[in-house]
Amino acid sequence: MIYLDNAATTRPFDEVIEEMAAVQKEIYANPASMHSAGYAAEKKVNDALDIAKSAIGAKNGTFLFTSGGTESNNLAFFGTLKSALKRNPHIITTKIEHPSILEPLKFLESCGAEVTYLDVDERGFVSPDDVAAQVRENTKIVSVMLVNNETGAIQPISEISKKVKEKNRSILVHSDCVQGFGNVDIDVKKLGVDMLSLSAHKINGPKGVGGFYCSDRVHLTPVMMGGHQQGDMRSGTLNTPGICGFAKALELTSAQATQKRAYFAELKAQMISELSENQLFTINNIGEDYSSHIISISVKNTRAEVLLHALETYGICISAGSACASNRPAPSHVLTAMGFDKTKIEGTVRVSLGCFNTAEDISMFCEHLKKEAAALSRFIRK
Amino acid sequence: MIYLDNAATTRPFDEVIEEMAAVQKEIYANPASMHSAGYAAEKKVNDALDIAKSAIGAKNGTFLFTSGGTESNNLAFFGTLKSALKRNPHIITTKIEHPSILEPLKFLESCGAEVTYLDVDERGFVSPDDVAAQVRENTKIVSVMLVNNETGAIQPISEISKKVKEKNRSILVHSDCVQGFGNVDIDVKKLGVDMLSLSAHKINGPKGVGGFYCSDRVHLTPVMMGGHQQGDMRSGTLNTPGICGFAKALELTSAQATQKRAYFAELKAQMISELSENQLFTINNIGEDYSSHIISISVKNTRAEVLLHALETYGICISAGSACASNRPAPSHVLTAMGFDKTKIEGTVRVSLGCFNTAEDISMFCEHLKKEAAALSRFIRK
Repeated sequence: MIYLDNAATTRPFDEVIEEMAAVQKEIYANPASMHSAGYAAEKKVNDALDIAKSAIGAKNGTFLFTSGGTESNNLAFFGTLKSALKRNPHIITTKIEHPSILEPLKFLESCGAEVTYLDVDERGFVSPDDVAAQVRENTKIVSVMLVNNETGAIQPISEISKKVKEKNRSILVHSDCVQGFGNVDIDVKKLGVDMLSLSAHKINGPKGVGGFYCSDRVHLTPVMMGGHQQGDMRSGTLNTPGICGFAKALELTSAQATQKRAYFAELKAQMISELSENQLFTINNIGEDYSSHIISISVKNTRAEVLLHALETYGICISAGSACASNRPAPSHVLTAMGFDKTKIEGTVRVSLGCFNTAEDISMFCEHLKKEAAALSRFIRK
Repeated sequence: MIYLDNAATTRPFDEVIEEMAAVQKEIYANPASMHSAGYAAEKKVNDALDIAKSAIGAKNGTFLFTSGGTESNNLAFFGTLKSALKRNPHIITTKIEHPSILEPLKFLESCGAEVTYLDVDERGFVSPDDVAAQVRENTKIVSVMLVNNETGAIQPISEISKKVKEKNRSILVHSDCVQGFGNVDIDVKKLGVDMLSLSAHKINGPKGVGGFYCSDRVHLTPVMMGGHQQGDMRSGTLNTPGICGFAKALELTSAQATQKRAYFAELKAQMISELSENQLFTINNIGEDYSSHIISISVKNTRAEVLLHALETYGICISAGSACASNRPAPSHVLTAMGFDKTKIEGTVRVSLGCFNTAEDISMFCEHLKKEAAALSRFIRK
């Protein structure tokens, strides 16, 4: 198998799998239990908490372990707007956010919130000035993702935060950093964010675990209620093995970040070079302002789904749009926002790189892509 | 270590740990991805779904994988009452429910819902007639746990459901079965429940995974919103390894249930026999209507916390009240509802049995308990 769908999810590091199995075997007590076995589990969770906060440069504030990026993104709104909802709060976001941002906002609109969905330019970028221009008196939250999951576009979060707060200091800036961690330096202070979301399984960590950071400026109210875990802000028995696996993935990803980015840049350059002379392909995301782990390729005279299935026969796994959307075939909302026409969107595939990919994977992929795209193209022309 | 805190959490079966590691290594793709690796993951999730539905006798309805019992219990209310909230719905529950039931209900009261918290008798049981007597025209949900986590009291859910529905057929009956699975036969039809909650880590499965069942009568609206996974009812990338670990735990627990119950009954009888002649101890939950995996022991002239720490020095892990409550020392709401006085509550410990316990564990525990309780008792009398 040549797995090139790492933006959908990644293969966990062996160290993560081993850590989780060891914790399951040896440190299985409930971290809330008042006995030595419970304290041992609590200590593991606290160590993981230190690692997580340090990985995003958070000296203060609150870091919560959640069940994943979706819960974290939901929490950014549902955990902050409960009391404000009666006063019709305004939220600014973009048209290219993940569904776990857009869907809660759609729901909040039905409850009386006002939401501005900003356009992006044809390269998939949000303009800080556009964001600032939309700030109103009742604007409560600005939420812009750090790295887009279909194009890899690195959004100018720190400029957005700066400009927004110049206009209204009380606004909370949230950033979905699920695709960003490891691919972009994340420091909550430098980014100027009050809240951010992480997911473990996108960085070779376990599925079912995520992170949510909020600064001391945020008055969070819990969404999940019960046994008062995590300072009463997120109830539910702490998932010690998952949390430890997440911490391990954060540590390893941080340690390898510089090297990993250079490696992905190399692999992306290789792919661009192998495909660029072929007129069937357009690479949509070339430039320093895109994270190298995502390559968006539009293929002429072809439907992405058909191409996907053709490549599958060689064990090549890539994606048309994002994984979240792929179970419900609909034209990508990201590429639509970038102004792509329907035919181009339908012919666009996403290749996403991970730590386990090799130059040979890229060569094999390019070879089969060229062959299959040519065959499909001939077929369609006839 | 002699781990006797299995109602707080359990050590995962080796088979669960192995299954999870294997899935993490080999079937790591996103189940929503449209390629062979994604389909393989989707198939694992679907197989787990079949196992889960079969484990509770659910032929129809919806079974969702959640992040745990807390999310499932929250969902029973937040997923069903959104649209009804404006019309001040009435909910009936008991005073001995888990905080993940009581806290959401407290919150809903602040939003206009009316909640009746039923008393229990001095043995910790709810009367079906008491429940039925509280049914009103606006009663939407009745939620009663199957097995109490501090006493093991098996509540008469099927009678409750029958009597409640005789008075108002439209009521939805929910049962928190987190402590029940494996210890009581669970069949949604026989129990007469429309919704039920499960947790994997209470049955030697992984932490961070739970289950929520609802019948076709329930109009569920999603609480976690995003990528439309699980029929749009619970968004978030499916935690394939956790879900497979949960399914493995459900299978193994179901297969061993009869044998396990007999074994726990034996161990409990042994404990009662070893402690009963000592006037310092009262066992609070003797009888066929209690699940044998929990033994509630009141110790004279002693504070449970002090006793816990004394036993800890021998590597014995037990609990005062439930794990959820133990990080926030407050008198047990369950024992309070049973009419225990403050001194008795403060002197009550909970021993909870698991598959890995042996008769020797029980002997060792009883020996040290008798010694330490006698020492503390002498100390306090002076």
